[in-house]
Amino acid sequence: MKQKNTSKKIKKSQALWRHAQEVMLGGVSLLSKKPERFLREGWPVYFTKAKGIEVWDLDGNHYKDFSYMGVGPNLLGYADREVDAAVKKVINAGNQSTLNSPEEVELADLLLKLHPWAAQVRYARSGGEIAAIAVRIARAHSGRDKVAFCGYHGWHDWYLATNLAKKKNLDGHLLPGLQPLGVPRALSGSALPFSFNKIEELEALVRKHKDIGVIAMEPMRHHEPEHNFLKKVRTIADRIGAVLIFDEISSGFRLGFPGAHTRFGVIPDIAIYSKAISNGYPMAALVGKKKVMREAHASFISSTYHSERIGPAAALATLRKLERVHIDQYVERVGWLIGREWQRLAKKHELPIVVEGPGAFINFTFTHPDAQALKALFTQEMLRYEYLATPTMYVSYAHKPADIVHYAKAVDAVFGSLAEALRRGVVHRRLRGGLPESGFVRLT
Amino acid sequence: MKQKNTSKKIKKSQALWRHAQEVMLGGVSLLSKKPERFLREGWPVYFTKAKGIEVWDLDGNHYKDFSYMGVGPNLLGYADREVDAAVKKVINAGNQSTLNSPEEVELADLLLKLHPWAAQVRYARSGGEIAAIAVRIARAHSGRDKVAFCGYHGWHDWYLATNLAKKKNLDGHLLPGLQPLGVPRALSGSALPFSFNKIEELEALVRKHKDIGVIAMEPMRHHEPEHNFLKKVRTIADRIGAVLIFDEISSGFRLGFPGAHTRFGVIPDIAIYSKAISNGYPMAALVGKKKVMREAHASFISSTYHSERIGPAAALATLRKLERVHIDQYVERVGWLIGREWQRLAKKHELPIVVEGPGAFINFTFTHPDAQALKALFTQEMLRYEYLATPTMYVSYAHKPADIVHYAKAVDAVFGSLAEALRRGVVHRRLRGGLPESGFVRLT
Repeated sequence: MKQKNTSKKIKKSQALWRHAQEVMLGGVSLLSKKPERFLREGWPVYFTKAKGIEVWDLDGNHYKDFSYMGVGPNLLGYADREVDAAVKKVINAGNQSTLNSPEEVELADLLLKLHPWAAQVRYARSGGEIAAIAVRIARAHSGRDKVAFCGYHGWHDWYLATNLAKKKNLDGHLLPGLQPLGVPRALSGSALPFSFNKIEELEALVRKHKDIGVIAMEPMRHHEPEHNFLKKVRTIADRIGAVLIFDEISSGFRLGFPGAHTRFGVIPDIAIYSKAISNGYPMAALVGKKKVMREAHASFISSTYHSERIGPAAALATLRKLERVHIDQYVERVGWLIGREWQRLAKKHELPIVVEGPGAFINFTFTHPDAQALKALFTQEMLRYEYLATPTMYVSYAHKPADIVHYAKAVDAVFGSLAEALRRGVVHRRLRGGLPESGFVRLT
Repeated sequence: MKQKNTSKKIKKSQALWRHAQEVMLGGVSLLSKKPERFLREGWPVYFTKAKGIEVWDLDGNHYKDFSYMGVGPNLLGYADREVDAAVKKVINAGNQSTLNSPEEVELADLLLKLHPWAAQVRYARSGGEIAAIAVRIARAHSGRDKVAFCGYHGWHDWYLATNLAKKKNLDGHLLPGLQPLGVPRALSGSALPFSFNKIEELEALVRKHKDIGVIAMEPMRHHEPEHNFLKKVRTIADRIGAVLIFDEISSGFRLGFPGAHTRFGVIPDIAIYSKAISNGYPMAALVGKKKVMREAHASFISSTYHSERIGPAAALATLRKLERVHIDQYVERVGWLIGREWQRLAKKHELPIVVEGPGAFINFTFTHPDAQALKALFTQEMLRYEYLATPTMYVSYAHKPADIVHYAKAVDAVFGSLAEALRRGVVHRRLRGGLPESGFVRLT
């Protein structure tokens, strides 16, 4: 396959990125969009246009996105026509007033139809904030402040509290890479982690701490719950009278419809959504059982921008389309089309990889001591073929089988190049700028 | 003046509101938009269209908004053409991708130009969340967790912690009406209130608590700082090494440009904005001094929807227009046009009122034992003349002198009716459904 852009020019992006690090705390608004997480050199940092799976960068280069699709929100692809039309309709009619938006009630009805066990909803405009609202409601109901949790739940104090080092021992952090600087020390000991699929860890926590009132977890991300893990968690929550929160911010609509909990038939007390719920427009939603929400009624939760109209309008249009196209089945199937191409091409080039599902988060790992370098080299080399590509993908409805045929040709060439680099022992030398920054570790 | 709609029909709104209270926790997303805060009966709850100062409700009734203008965000009026055009441009180009939005860097540059003392910015999509980020950064810098505060700062734990009753004594709440149910009790004592313009209260706090690391306040809302209050707070912050946060979410662009702090020449370490910064599109921003932001670099703050593109695009268009039209001077002037009409008409009808500035929040109070009932009756009767009207206003650029001439005719008629009701002692009888719910009390 011909390399279309052997020396992509990303000068404008690079200059803006250097400047952004000066003027923005951390340089980016989402850590997962930091260029150094992908590559030390060469990742196109900024975009001007995005449509379907296509992205145009600040320097005018064109790519197809076989990486994170906005890090989750764009399950229908970028700039979905139906969702955008619904949003523009709202903009034309005015998206805010002293009166309320009927769309937020309409969305409540749709969410409650999708969650027959739930009685009430609440909204925010970011995943981290809706998680904080969920924990507030759960604590209000149980009357107990300690949270046992598993998985990733954002930047707020209640969650990062788990990393408050009792002895200033940063190595002891339970979520390596997440610094709790500025989280009040009084919260130390209030967030207690357990690992996914290790029910004995949660059992040990509830034995030791009689005052756990909340259990918060992602029902699934990369690994399926085993040995009835979710059911066992549900049983423990019921036994100790804790509120069970399923964080479906990443799994929602992808691993089941509306959420991963649907796939396993385990019902939480509260489920939270963001990201894919609104296909790129800021929105987050919580659904909860009657008994839990009733008690939270008196807790003060209120925000001006939680009352604007685009969020619910975008979510209504998104959810209707996601349901209509059977999105969870689509991404499972298409994800594995990609996964099998990886397997076939790795075999052809004798590259040691393992492909894992679920299809929605299809991913491969190099089973090799130089795995980290190979992973980055894959991303670096795929850019030459006009692909934003990572070994872990967020599959979307905009990824069509025809796109995969084309993508597989680029993977074929890059896997060949990687195999050759491995044979010649030049993997590290070929990786410009060295290994990328590593991400934080999730309790998944 | 002719009453155009003596019996406004709001059946659809009423039915939807009854349903919303079933399916949404609290019924609304912003407490200040709860209909019972305006009137027990008759407030049109939901809108379908809003443009300039005009609002159309769910039942097809038409109003002009001389009340809260979205409770703050719509300083340029509803559906501003320039801002909406900027947003639609972003939607057409795609508002989200795996790459970052150059607009967030462009906005950073504009914000830093407006705040020459600041070095870095950070974004969120709601006022409450940006306040929580500010407190996180401030605690990270000072290394001390206690916050002395004044004014209103949203729903998050750090703030509501002040209402954690040590003896389950709800009457002792420092912010009456804000329930801290679900706020971890470990935070008790971490948020310490002082009153605006009472420097001795802050002095007493810092004498008693040696570990205050953050002072958070609104630089001004309804009352001007007196006796160099802000400068004295600044001096105390410097003396004890606390980070001074000015919350400009309500005051920003209205009481000075960019903020009320500009009006008084006192510079905080961090300033936060939301509401008017983006004229109705979810956005919030923080600007901070170099020394403060530097230390926060390692604290984990990250959210997918903090990285979308509409927020910064809307803020850029909004700020450019707000600056160009000298918005703070405009609303000060136009607010007082309204205020003087109130004074003139109250005098004419011998109604006991006091009008107070600032123009941006022009407001009047009935100096009468039945003040609460008169206030609600004003709102109730103004609806007959197609006005959403409250004695406290958020003045916008869309309120033109010609609108005020028309509005004054309605006020003339309603003040006449109120005066007659007072003389006949039937104020309470005329108020359908009784007194509205009271709001919470701010430390202003």
